[in-house]
Amino acid sequence: MVKRNKNFAKLQAGYLFPEINRRKKEFMEKHPDADLISLGIGDTTEPLPQVVVEALKEVADEMGTVEGYSGYGDEQGLTELRKKVAEIFYPGLIEADELFISDGAKCDTGRLQMMFGNEMTIAVQDPSYPVYVDSAVIMGQTGSYVTEKKQFENIVYMPCTAENDFFPKLKKADIIYFCSPNNPTGAVATKEQLEHLVRFAKENDAIIVFDAAYAEFITDPNLPKTIYEIEGAKEVAIEVSSFSKPFGYTGVRLGWTVVPKELKYSDGTAVHNDWNRIMTTVFNGASNIIQKATLRSLNDEGLGEMKRLIAYYLQNAKIIKDALDKMGYQTYGGDNAPYIWVKTKSDNSWKAFNHILEETQIVTTPGSGFGPGGETYVRFSAFGHRKKIEEAVARLQKAVLEHI
Amino acid sequence: MVKRNKNFAKLQAGYLFPEINRRKKEFMEKHPDADLISLGIGDTTEPLPQVVVEALKEVADEMGTVEGYSGYGDEQGLTELRKKVAEIFYPGLIEADELFISDGAKCDTGRLQMMFGNEMTIAVQDPSYPVYVDSAVIMGQTGSYVTEKKQFENIVYMPCTAENDFFPKLKKADIIYFCSPNNPTGAVATKEQLEHLVRFAKENDAIIVFDAAYAEFITDPNLPKTIYEIEGAKEVAIEVSSFSKPFGYTGVRLGWTVVPKELKYSDGTAVHNDWNRIMTTVFNGASNIIQKATLRSLNDEGLGEMKRLIAYYLQNAKIIKDALDKMGYQTYGGDNAPYIWVKTKSDNSWKAFNHILEETQIVTTPGSGFGPGGETYVRFSAFGHRKKIEEAVARLQKAVLEHI
Repeated sequence: MVKRNKNFAKLQAGYLFPEINRRKKEFMEKHPDADLISLGIGDTTEPLPQVVVEALKEVADEMGTVEGYSGYGDEQGLTELRKKVAEIFYPGLIEADELFISDGAKCDTGRLQMMFGNEMTIAVQDPSYPVYVDSAVIMGQTGSYVTEKKQFENIVYMPCTAENDFFPKLKKADIIYFCSPNNPTGAVATKEQLEHLVRFAKENDAIIVFDAAYAEFITDPNLPKTIYEIEGAKEVAIEVSSFSKPFGYTGVRLGWTVVPKELKYSDGTAVHNDWNRIMTTVFNGASNIIQKATLRSLNDEGLGEMKRLIAYYLQNAKIIKDALDKMGYQTYGGDNAPYIWVKTKSDNSWKAFNHILEETQIVTTPGSGFGPGGETYVRFSAFGHRKKIEEAVARLQKAVLEHI
Repeated sequence: MVKRNKNFAKLQAGYLFPEINRRKKEFMEKHPDADLISLGIGDTTEPLPQVVVEALKEVADEMGTVEGYSGYGDEQGLTELRKKVAEIFYPGLIEADELFISDGAKCDTGRLQMMFGNEMTIAVQDPSYPVYVDSAVIMGQTGSYVTEKKQFENIVYMPCTAENDFFPKLKKADIIYFCSPNNPTGAVATKEQLEHLVRFAKENDAIIVFDAAYAEFITDPNLPKTIYEIEGAKEVAIEVSSFSKPFGYTGVRLGWTVVPKELKYSDGTAVHNDWNRIMTTVFNGASNIIQKATLRSLNDEGLGEMKRLIAYYLQNAKIIKDALDKMGYQTYGGDNAPYIWVKTKSDNSWKAFNHILEETQIVTTPGSGFGPGGETYVRFSAFGHRKKIEEAVARLQKAVLEHI
């Protein structure tokens, strides 16, 4: 029989969110009448904007006609959509052909790792979105998991704590993953912090993978929404982003990655070329129906709907954060981000997760799922119907959460 | 600066189909009035079935309501869709949870390589779909490209020729890629041939990746439509398939991969577990709109439409094949497959490609794009509107194709 890829044996348990789902299901089996409220996974709950719905129906009709039908498109995305997204989200900052449309930021993260290969070293914020680490393990960039440290060998962890205001002391690696607004801490890097990050990458020969999936939650005009607002960033940074949160596309699937042409490897070749090769070789374009409908929705009405959706979730965040603050918890994030990062009294965040679930039937996300730096935290997600959020807050205020 | 992943330097020129597009564009710039007919890339041209269109519109409307909206689903696909696809295409042969819904066979091929890792050896039919080889190169499974042989070191090439009826002498490797109905040769393996393949894999400790993307074109009831019709195949074979061709979904994006639970690595772990980990870690599910609409379309009406579409393209294939036969060419495939594999007089298939393009303004696919074994062939695709196919045939019959 064939030998298993040894990297899989290194992976720890399941990927975080399927594991949470498993525990949810287990809880429901034990308590079939429980009325769970999920503030766990960052999953949108509000309907698709009507402008998107109407565009989808139009495109569906067209796809049913000889004239309107289309098959394979460019793997890099519809030219018009690339232009539109570049124009709206990166005005004057990037060229349309530096932006590649995809089926989402998570999938692009996997493909980026495939492009980087197994000889890169990566640095991650600790805590961070688990896909950076797990995909690095799968690609063979790491050593084994060290149980005492709860870390993988060969990954550089950069602790983000309340003490450093969740902006880490930067450390050397080939690839630095950086997420702002941050998942899970909700911290948003300032212009000065990102300037420092870009300077550090230049001085230390690193490529930044900047995860901007939550950029639209930034309402403070002083905070940068893309790394390309920073001078010189195009020489060192790739940016990954998505329609998932702003348009409610978590299930619809549409995102993008920007790979500037100025970004070069040490042999002088453009990273852009290799990314183009990855996208044309192991990807076949995002669904044309979704792409076409989105292109038609990126008008004043659609952008207005986007703002409305974002404002709705940010109001949820405020409600949760205010309640937890009043209960005496130390909370972070939630202002320009849909996540509230809550310090608990527990030394084990899965215990805290279970305790909250048992006492309030609210599903959160245990901080340790994002790395060892999250061990004493839980993450509350602000995605949910307003009524559920209010109900969750009421339950929290009534509950006796003595262990957390 | 960061060192480039050395595997990218090994890749040859562009991926085949973007390269064909580039040449098409170049030709159009020189001949702006040319009336190109594309029989190159295997891209569907007929409208989506109305049942799919109506289902898409229904789902779009529902996604615009609080009750009907859904966000992230299981990365493995909608449970009901997994059941339905298993039931229709693998009746009694597999369990629903062995089937994973995805955004297409090409993307799954890339993810399979990511799962296999860089220590596997692969064997491919020569000629074969270029993604198997290119993704192996990207993952570091191969050595360098050997220009004289037009082959990569460490890939086992299994020549498929008219002499062996396009069923190769099988050779040892960890992973054997096998495509039937074959792209590009149009050959369909018989039950006996697949029995031989399964037995060979068992005796030689190999995993078969069976590409069944064209299975629905099989109209001869004696030919197997899935590898799982062969006894024991579940212990050695993964099957990749797609709605692209039968439902006209090349741009819509929906496919699946079957990883049976019986399939084990040498350490006794189930390949199914690692595939589940890949799908949950670097993939986020196919678009829920497409999944839901497809689920609703897999009824008698939808399956009837599928048959009608397949019959339409097969009739195209017959028209092309008959014409080329009459012109004295040796042709293969086209009976239970949408591709006609044509032997040319030219010793260089890009030359033949250019010659056909210049003389008839028809775009084909040069055989060498599928591997050195395709050097003296070109592939005609049967995807196209009937009128275009008839026009193409008329042009061919009028043309002076002295070099091919």
